[in-house]
Amino acid sequence: MDKTPSLDFLFRPKTLAIAGVSANIGSILTLPQRYIRSLIDFGFKGKIYPVHPAGGEIFGLKVYKDVEEISDSIDYVVAAIPARLTPQLLTGCARKKVKAVHLFTSGFSEIEDEVGKILESEVVDIARKNGIRILGPNCMGLYCPSTGLTFAANYPEQRGFPSTPGPLGLISQSGGNTTYCIREATTRGIYFSKAISYGNAADLNESDFLEYLTDDPNTKVIAIYIEGVKDGPRFIRTLKRAASFKPVIIYKSGNTETGVRACASHTSAMAGSANTWNSFLKQAGAIQVNSMEEIVDVSLLFLKMSVPKGRNAVVIGAGGGVGVQAADECTEAGLILPLLPQDVRQSLRKIYGSEAGSIFRNPVDVPGLSSKDMLVNAVKSIAASELIDIIIMHFPFDLWALAYRKEIIGQYIESVVELASSVRKPMASVLHFCATIQSKQLAAEVQEKFVNAGLPVYPGFKRAASAINKYLQYHERGKNGQFK
Amino acid sequence: MDKTPSLDFLFRPKTLAIAGVSANIGSILTLPQRYIRSLIDFGFKGKIYPVHPAGGEIFGLKVYKDVEEISDSIDYVVAAIPARLTPQLLTGCARKKVKAVHLFTSGFSEIEDEVGKILESEVVDIARKNGIRILGPNCMGLYCPSTGLTFAANYPEQRGFPSTPGPLGLISQSGGNTTYCIREATTRGIYFSKAISYGNAADLNESDFLEYLTDDPNTKVIAIYIEGVKDGPRFIRTLKRAASFKPVIIYKSGNTETGVRACASHTSAMAGSANTWNSFLKQAGAIQVNSMEEIVDVSLLFLKMSVPKGRNAVVIGAGGGVGVQAADECTEAGLILPLLPQDVRQSLRKIYGSEAGSIFRNPVDVPGLSSKDMLVNAVKSIAASELIDIIIMHFPFDLWALAYRKEIIGQYIESVVELASSVRKPMASVLHFCATIQSKQLAAEVQEKFVNAGLPVYPGFKRAASAINKYLQYHERGKNGQFK
Repeated sequence: MDKTPSLDFLFRPKTLAIAGVSANIGSILTLPQRYIRSLIDFGFKGKIYPVHPAGGEIFGLKVYKDVEEISDSIDYVVAAIPARLTPQLLTGCARKKVKAVHLFTSGFSEIEDEVGKILESEVVDIARKNGIRILGPNCMGLYCPSTGLTFAANYPEQRGFPSTPGPLGLISQSGGNTTYCIREATTRGIYFSKAISYGNAADLNESDFLEYLTDDPNTKVIAIYIEGVKDGPRFIRTLKRAASFKPVIIYKSGNTETGVRACASHTSAMAGSANTWNSFLKQAGAIQVNSMEEIVDVSLLFLKMSVPKGRNAVVIGAGGGVGVQAADECTEAGLILPLLPQDVRQSLRKIYGSEAGSIFRNPVDVPGLSSKDMLVNAVKSIAASELIDIIIMHFPFDLWALAYRKEIIGQYIESVVELASSVRKPMASVLHFCATIQSKQLAAEVQEKFVNAGLPVYPGFKRAASAINKYLQYHERGKNGQFK
Repeated sequence: MDKTPSLDFLFRPKTLAIAGVSANIGSILTLPQRYIRSLIDFGFKGKIYPVHPAGGEIFGLKVYKDVEEISDSIDYVVAAIPARLTPQLLTGCARKKVKAVHLFTSGFSEIEDEVGKILESEVVDIARKNGIRILGPNCMGLYCPSTGLTFAANYPEQRGFPSTPGPLGLISQSGGNTTYCIREATTRGIYFSKAISYGNAADLNESDFLEYLTDDPNTKVIAIYIEGVKDGPRFIRTLKRAASFKPVIIYKSGNTETGVRACASHTSAMAGSANTWNSFLKQAGAIQVNSMEEIVDVSLLFLKMSVPKGRNAVVIGAGGGVGVQAADECTEAGLILPLLPQDVRQSLRKIYGSEAGSIFRNPVDVPGLSSKDMLVNAVKSIAASELIDIIIMHFPFDLWALAYRKEIIGQYIESVVELASSVRKPMASVLHFCATIQSKQLAAEVQEKFVNAGLPVYPGFKRAASAINKYLQYHERGKNGQFK
């Protein structure tokens, strides 16, 4: 039961039933109603069967009284019904030869009441005896753009998840974190092969999905959010194998006693000590991060940046004080900011006329919004230096707000977009100093342009430098033969 | 010369001349033109005299050929002319009995060329011999809402600095950092008595301004961004005295060798070693922070939050995964998240009906957008517990985007605004998970509402918890008599 050669069937159901979808639409959609609406809007490629004892019709689809009433065979069932009714549903699914049930429902082993734990093992028992795989309980389920599976609604004010598939595979024990990670990744130009919110892992667990993504040809980088594991030794074996094939970025939460307690009440996970995890992840060759943002920060480099030859970085942008901060934060994160060689500094002096008000050492402080050519030429002359491995450009939006008009900013941004395609050296950008809503708005527009140009975008030096450091460490370790 | 009983005259000039303002207005305003435009728009209370050898008229004001041509006496001169012309200007100012000159101009001791250092000492010499105080060179100057001094333009797309005065006094060696700090503080509900960007500190330096703000009755909290000091022993004495009267929050950059080099090229400051600074700041009773954002994070508590009785915090909001992260980050920052007492958990169970899908231990995970009454009652029942000293509410915008419409969010937000006025216990809020521009926009609107309700707002748990920890440390040390 535990070993499945492939979980591919989970991601391409031909028929999908959702239990718990009332045909009564109130002032706001219920969660199962939203779920079904999302699938329709997202263009799910299979057939959708709403199920509810009261029957009726919703979104033009007949609501079946129970799963067994459906004449079609059913590949996948989403259960959004009260926990206590789940065993009954499973029994029906068993008779119907359903292959997989996603238990959206919570109220199982994660709650303190012993009843939840008993219910969960009852449900798993029925599933195991009948060859049904369980996803969850207590999870959002699957996002797979290539087959049209999703769980995010497309409301007018909000965007659902993107329908573009991509190379990142995400396994996450938290539905909220899954959602946030997909949204954050998308705004930074990363798309997904699959994202899996798996909750309590009563049956299918982290190791099953990790094995699957390791063998999935559409997944180039694997990201994991985990609170704890069910079967430690198996996870260790699976992770080592995964990391020998693909970069595996992992955020293990529950590093403090209070965090461990929170894990237990969230997904009933046994979290383990932080030290044990740290050394185990290192040994397995996984890349450890400390937040969902950092999953995106690091993935970005694997997917968008060529491997730097070394740790020598240049920081260039407007602002002297922020340059000092950049120097501190980049150095503390493990990058080296060498003094620029005299010939490069001489070129910069020629480009900008004088060094007054600027700094050409490194960090390089240049006028906030110089002419298009100035920045392009400056970055190119820096990129031409053998000494420099990485270029980090930064853009302080609240400072621009001080002085300049939008059309000038537009030209400046275009010059960066041009650089992104013409400079071969690894480059990243920092969009920061965005306190006001005007600055935030402008930064979001600029970010979209940079992302489309393939440029990695970060909200601060600390996060950029820390991600680059982990990217470098991964490849440095690779050289020493620790990876296949 | 070094000891001035008060620098108050700097902030209330009756007459102000700006040297370097050409009457020719091109497609964008030059920096000195923007400077003068800003003063006019901001409502500067004195008279403004533009100065430029070519004469003419700008913004309805006559442009004088030189300072001496002005018949009025001149209190304050802003010099935005090339560095090499500055000694000549100073000589004119001396004859005119000008009290203070702000050298906006750069190209002095901060550049590598020896010429800059020679020029700077020449200018200081003239000033000292003639009783003129120098601000800068290489700085943005003064922001003082009560007298209408500013340096931020009000362009249509952007907001200038607020005209509302407030209790925070800022001394900053970087103009960019000053600008950013004012913008960031403003969006979080903090206003300024004075903000001083002082650059190279050729004459007036950090100690002069710190002394002044210590004695300034309108300044309740002092914030400092510093790269290095001119006179170490004097700064130590001044800082100790300041910290014995008011909270002093200080961001000393240049903590790494590269950072120290960056300081030298930015403001010619001798940065000193990080260790020396850390222990000195601690000993002086100052609150050390590591970024401009953190200056705002910590100031916010001194200005908006009553002093918590202890370190016991509750985190409440939507999301289980994010709750685990909150538990880790708050604990790592030094807060304690005690398990909620049974009676409080029982109240929460009554309010929300069941614990399925929620967590009532601490962090408390409640439905993303419950009815108005639910959250109000939940927070009130938590606040009523003697065990709890601090309440941190969090709001994940990308998760809301998943599910709900705006009117529902509006009601939910109103309930938080109500809580801010009815709950006496120290409260803070975390507005996070804002990846998409829609989420950012919504978060900015919500932030404005919370800020108006007097609620401290943070973009993440780490920053909130770290600021609260420093606030607690300050008061804990106070109890031990380390402060007056």
